[in-house]
Formats: sequence, structure tokens, C-alpha cells
Amino acid sequence: APKQRMSFSLSQGTRDYNPKQMAIRERVFNTIISCFKRHGAETIDTPVFELKETLTGKYGEDSKLIYDLKDQGGELLSLRYDLTVPFARYLAMNKITNIKRYHIAKVYRRDNPAMTRGRYREFYQCDFDIAGQYDGMIPDAECLKIVHEILSELDLGDFRIKVNDRRILDGMFAVCGVPDDKFRSICSTVDKLDKMPWEDVKKEMVNEKGLSEEVADRIGEYVSLQGGMDLAERLLQDHRMSQSKQVLPLARGLDYYTGIIYEAVLTQAGAVPAPAEAQKGAPAEESVSVGSVAGGGRYDGLVGMFDPKGRKVPCVGVSIGIERIFSIMEHKAEVSAEKVRTTEVQVMVASAQKNLLEEKLRLITELWDAGIKAEVMYKKNPKLLSQLQHCEESGIPLVAILGEQELKDGVVKLRVVATREEVDISRADLIAEIRKRTSEA
Amino acid sequence: APKQRMSFSLSQGTRDYNPKQMAIRERVFNTIISCFKRHGAETIDTPVFELKETLTGKYGEDSKLIYDLKDQGGELLSLRYDLTVPFARYLAMNKITNIKRYHIAKVYRRDNPAMTRGRYREFYQCDFDIAGQYDGMIPDAECLKIVHEILSELDLGDFRIKVNDRRILDGMFAVCGVPDDKFRSICSTVDKLDKMPWEDVKKEMVNEKGLSEEVADRIGEYVSLQGGMDLAERLLQDHRMSQSKQVLPLARGLDYYTGIIYEAVLTQAGAVPAPAEAQKGAPAEESVSVGSVAGGGRYDGLVGMFDPKGRKVPCVGVSIGIERIFSIMEHKAEVSAEKVRTTEVQVMVASAQKNLLEEKLRLITELWDAGIKAEVMYKKNPKLLSQLQHCEESGIPLVAILGEQELKDGVVKLRVVATREEVDISRADLIAEIRKRTSEA
Repeated sequence: APKQRMSFSLSQGTRDYNPKQMAIRERVFNTIISCFKRHGAETIDTPVFELKETLTGKYGEDSKLIYDLKDQGGELLSLRYDLTVPFARYLAMNKITNIKRYHIAKVYRRDNPAMTRGRYREFYQCDFDIAGQYDGMIPDAECLKIVHEILSELDLGDFRIKVNDRRILDGMFAVCGVPDDKFRSICSTVDKLDKMPWEDVKKEMVNEKGLSEEVADRIGEYVSLQGGMDLAERLLQDHRMSQSKQVLPLARGLDYYTGIIYEAVLTQAGAVPAPAEAQKGAPAEESVSVGSVAGGGRYDGLVGMFDPKGRKVPCVGVSIGIERIFSIMEHKAEVSAEKVRTTEVQVMVASAQKNLLEEKLRLITELWDAGIKAEVMYKKNPKLLSQLQHCEESGIPLVAILGEQELKDGVVKLRVVATREEVDISRADLIAEIRKRTSEA
Repeated sequence: APKQRMSFSLSQGTRDYNPKQMAIRERVFNTIISCFKRHGAETIDTPVFELKETLTGKYGEDSKLIYDLKDQGGELLSLRYDLTVPFARYLAMNKITNIKRYHIAKVYRRDNPAMTRGRYREFYQCDFDIAGQYDGMIPDAECLKIVHEILSELDLGDFRIKVNDRRILDGMFAVCGVPDDKFRSICSTVDKLDKMPWEDVKKEMVNEKGLSEEVADRIGEYVSLQGGMDLAERLLQDHRMSQSKQVLPLARGLDYYTGIIYEAVLTQAGAVPAPAEAQKGAPAEESVSVGSVAGGGRYDGLVGMFDPKGRKVPCVGVSIGIERIFSIMEHKAEVSAEKVRTTEVQVMVASAQKNLLEEKLRLITELWDAGIKAEVMYKKNPKLLSQLQHCEESGIPLVAILGEQELKDGVVKLRVVATREEVDISRADLIAEIRKRTSEA
């Protein structure tokens, strides 16, 4: 029955999270949210779809990757492509000029799966942004600090944070002889350097974007440069560059950046497993791709695009690309054979004898009322063995066993699953005993 | 500039959450998630869109409310309408026959805003479901227990949980003379009794669904019945009803229920504010609507619809309708003039003198490294007053003030915002002192 087979597949480029993956995801989110909160950020949420025109003209060439909703009468809607444009819309709409906020939510891109294996069409972004007119580059520096803190705490191995500035790129394009109206378009092409070798990038510049070979070669000279402060010095002495600090082969394809831009990549390629989907049929060319896990920059003009009077709100922010981090953490958990618990159940209420369902329900209700995480099997008369097995499988540390004798004596037999030790505890002391034993663990 | 004005509006039926609303939302979610975890549930996640055919034929008349994505080449996709159908698809796809899981996520319905004021087109559902072949109605009872626990803990005022069974409804339709092929369709109409008076419901049955007046009147007799165990007794003695326990005017529009169905309503109508949107233009007829905040039931056939061999997995679950609960909590916070904090910042690093930015950044880095939640203003030389005002506004309890003298002495002036008390603390003791003072609060 092919129709039925169809109906239980997932749409291309999307995934389910099973309980184990969710437990790992929760851990990663907790680390990231803790960092955002430590830096004093508030959080907001916006709808998953926006008016189509809200997204129009914000993403340059990438606009073709926006998911549109079907016109079912009414407004034309699109799924959000990132969290930055909705944030800018939110600021303009609510006339907010100062905020430090984080937003963790899914975004949607109709990426060509043949070209970008391992990228999902639905994926999480974890964004931290600072809006407001402030001194120097203090908020910009805090964003970089946050990337550094999160990547260090997640313990993903060595990483490098690449830094550039949109104004340096523009200056570079100008001295290379790129026509003004092609800056953005050429910038998108340069951005592909982390996925394609220079020869292919150059080919696109010449054949598709209409640059002369000569201009493309001049760009090639610059984008091959890499370094730290020493590079900044060299560029300052470059008579062709009017203003510069640092140039790195980093462009970031999005249209809206106006100042500093940055991207964090994992440098221990070996430690980075390709996501399952990518492994299946991915060719060797994949190895060109570095593990980009965070990126962002300054976008001082975006909010003004939503304001009727064009009032600007300077913004800088960073987005943590969480999917690759999930893959690494999942891989780590597998390699270390770590047993990831998917529930937090402290105790199972069990019985060795028959016809004790109601007694068990009475006991578990007491436990629930006291805030103890507890489970009971949904069978009238389950075997003790199957109750104990369930505990072993799901990592439940304690079993509270009821029997006729225990009921008469007003006690419960408390069994420690790991050691098989059993002690009789009076009903009155049971809750305290469970709390004590599970807070130790 | 009408185009610009358009571009910062939201799509109809959706909303942003500001930081204060998010703080309240987080509190509600924490209560609900704690309850789900206390009952030993795991959690999963599924994509926001599914293949269109996955949703086809699952929602009866409500199918017209499904959002479709535009055909941009490739698969035909729809936004999820609830979390139950994706759950069933997940079980079938992964051949899972036993699971207790919760899932909190947004769902999408193209509800007619003119008819259903106060209902959003994007809204959260908090679902708890138990899949598996179990004894008696133990899992069914646990779902009701969970509704009771959550509504009690959220302290929303009195509520009533209405219980019915799809099989009783079907029996009732049969004895009233409804043709078999109209059961589902008439059931949807009966479900509107919580939004429309009986006269309008009857009109729809006769004029739109083609029932005779006589049959409709007979249905009217049954659905006017309400009660507890006494009603069950009366129905058992009703010679027209072959099997019954309890009949209440509750139908639940969804197609997939096969056994017990339930819905929880808040009964203190006065305590339930209509959401802001609804208040604007809502007519008096709104008062017919009761505050439904949870619903669910047993659906033993749904998973089988996704299995090539039609293998069934019995399921029962409950969905907490969170939007109305958010509104009530927001309203409560407003009425009580409670100051809802939107960050958890413990201390602001401040200075009274100029040119101490680097010293402040050095100190705040020490605090962040120790896990202290701390903020510094993004100005080179902010006024002390504006730093203190920021603390008052956002509820930051402590200020760590640096000055030339303090730096020389190796101390920090720690100010308690509420009492204006100031004490000099040595740098070495600062972290412990902040922890002590903010864990007390």
C-alpha cells in the first residue's frame, strides 16, 4: 500500500527528536540559556510565520529559500527565515530602542538538500542580541564573549572565532574594482568560500555575476589573507585600502550586516561527526566545509526598515547554530556509552502480590502530592520481575514495594535498584527517605 | 507610507510575547512540565510541518482549518493542527508500542477570527499521552488526575471536568435516529454547544446537516442532561439507551476519539478575562463560551491509520490549552500589581567615577566565570544615578560599585538596592557575599 507508506514519512529536511535526543537537547539548551541569563538577557517570542513582505528584501539572494504559505484567502505569509528580522520588526512595532534579549526557536529554509547535506530545513537558532545606542564596541565585545563562553562550556573541542567588518569588505571590493551595485551579490559569493574552493567561487563571480577575471583575481588576493593583529597591521599599510583593521575570508551572506561580522568554527574536524543524513551519501567534497557553529554581527539599519520614519536602532547579535552541536553531543554520548536518562523518576511503586492496584494508586498519589516523581505500571497485576526490569532499563533508582504484610505493618519495602538492598520504611518516613536517597544520587 | 506601515504588523491571529509575558509563560510551563515529569513522562519533538497527507482525513470538518504551505516544488506540506496526529505518525514510523510522553509546542489553525474571538491561529498545546495495551482504564484515569493536578496547582479558581464516552454518544445518535454516515458530522455540531445556544445548534443540524426536526429534538433532550453518578443511573434505566454510563453535553469535534472523552472548564466566569483581542469588539454572545482549558480522550485507531498493516496502538491523552491560562495569569499579575522580573540578574557592576570601564569589565568577567548573573552598562562613563535607576526598574538587588579608592584598597562597595545599605567587601569575598545575599532573597 504505497499511499499508506507515504503517509508515515517525514517531510524532507526535517526530523523528529526522540526522548534521548530531547534529553541531550535540554542539556545543551540549559547551558546556553544559563549563559544568556548570566549576561542579563530577557527573552521574547514571535510567531513562526510573518507577513511575507516583512521578510522581503532582507536576505539578498537567500530570499529564494523562504517558505511561503499557500494563499488560502487573506494575507500572504512566510515562515520565518531567521530570528533577527522578526526581532527588528518587534522592536519597530513596539517602539523599543533598548533591549538585551535572547530568543530560542525554530527557523525554516528551503535549502537544496543535494547541495547542503547535513543541513536541516527546520532548525533551531539561539539568538542573543543587544539593541541600543551605546559607546564604543562594548555590546559587540559582549556578543563575542558569549560565543566564547558557550563554546567553552559545551566542551566541543578547539574552535576559532573569525572576525571581519562589513566596511572592510566594502572597502576591499571598491579597491578591487567591483561596481557598487554588485557589492552585496559578490559578498554572497565570497561567503561560499567555506563550502567551495576558490576556483569555483571565482568561476561564479566571472560566469554568473559578470566580474572580469582581473577583478576576481584581485579579490582572490585579499580573501586568501588570514591572521590576527599582524594582518591588521599589514592591511593598514596597504595603500589600496583606505580603512581597515582585519580581513579574513569571511563574508556572511545576509544583506543586513553593517559593521562587525563574526563566525565561530570548530577546528578539530575529526571530532565533528557529520549528521546521520549527511553521512549516507555525502561525497568527499564535504570535507571542505568547516564546522560553523555560531555567527552574527552588527546590523544598524534593519530596524529602521520597519519604521515609517526610518528611525534607526543600532543592533548587534549572535546566533548559535545548535543542530551541529546536538550532533556532536549525541555522538559523544554514544561513544562514551553514557546512559542518558529520559525521565527523572525517583521511585517505582510496585507489588509482588496480586490485587493491590488500589493500594498502589493510593501510595503513588501520596508521593505525587509530595512532589516525588513516581511511576506505577498500568497493569492490574504486573509481575515483580517486569516491574524491576522497567526500573533497570529506565534508570529508576528506587522501588517502593507493597505487600499484604507491609500494609498490615504500616511499612513499605524500599529497594535500591543498583545494590538490591531492601529496607522496611514506615509509611510516615517514606517520603523523607526517598528524598534523602535520591538527592544523594 | 502605507507599504511601510503594513510591513511592521503581525499576521492575523498571531502574537508576540514580550519579556514580561515570557516570564509568566515560563512559570506556567514549569508547573505543567513538573507535573508531567512527576508522572514519569519522557518528551519528544516533531517538525512544525508534516506531509499534507499525514493530516488528511484525521480532523473531520475541521480539516478546512489546516494551513497548507505553498507548492514551491517538491512535497505538499501542512502546518501541524495538533500534536496528536504527529504523535501517532511518530509511533507508527518508529514502531513504538509503549510510551508515556509529553510534547509542548505550537499548533496552527485557520480559525475564522470573526467567529472565534480570543482564539489564536498560532497557539501552544501541552500534551501528555500514554500509548500501550494496558489494563482497565488506568492510563485514562492518570490523564484525568494530571488535569486535576495542573489546574489545582495553577490556582485558576473552580473548574469542572466534563466526562463522556464516544460510544455513549454514538449510542445516543443511534437511538435518536441519526443515520450512521452522519454521526461524525452531527458530533461536530453538538460540540458547538459550548459556543452557541441550543437553538442555533439545532438550526445547523436541520438546515445544514439535513436532520429532521424530530431527530434534532430527540438529541436536544439528551444533550440537555447533566450530572454525575445520578445521571449515569438514570441513563442506565433509559430503555432507549443500550449501554451507557454518563452523558454530558460534550462531544469534542475531532474525528479520532474512540472511547472516553473529557474537557475541563473554568466555572468562575468572572475570573476569566477575555484576551485583549477579544475584548475590543466582542459582542455579548461571547458569554455563552465557557473557559475550556483542557481536553482529550482515548483514540485507539489513530496509530493504525499510519501503519501499513493497520496494527493498532491504543492511546489516551490530554491537551492543556495554555493560551487562556496565560491570559488569566497575566490578568492576575496586573490586578495584584505584582512586579514580574524579566531577568534574574543578581548584581550590577557600577562605578561613580570616570574611566573605569576596563576595571568594571575585569570584575564582571570574574563574576560571570563564577556563575553570577551580572550586568554592566554599555556606556564608557555612565552616571551612578542612571546605573542605580536601572537596578530599581529591573529589580536587580545588588550593586557592586568600583572607585579609585576601592581599587587601591582591594575592595568593592556592595550596595543593597532596597535598603541603600553599603558595605565594603574584599575582592576575595565578593562572590561568596553576592551568593549569600541573593540566595536569601
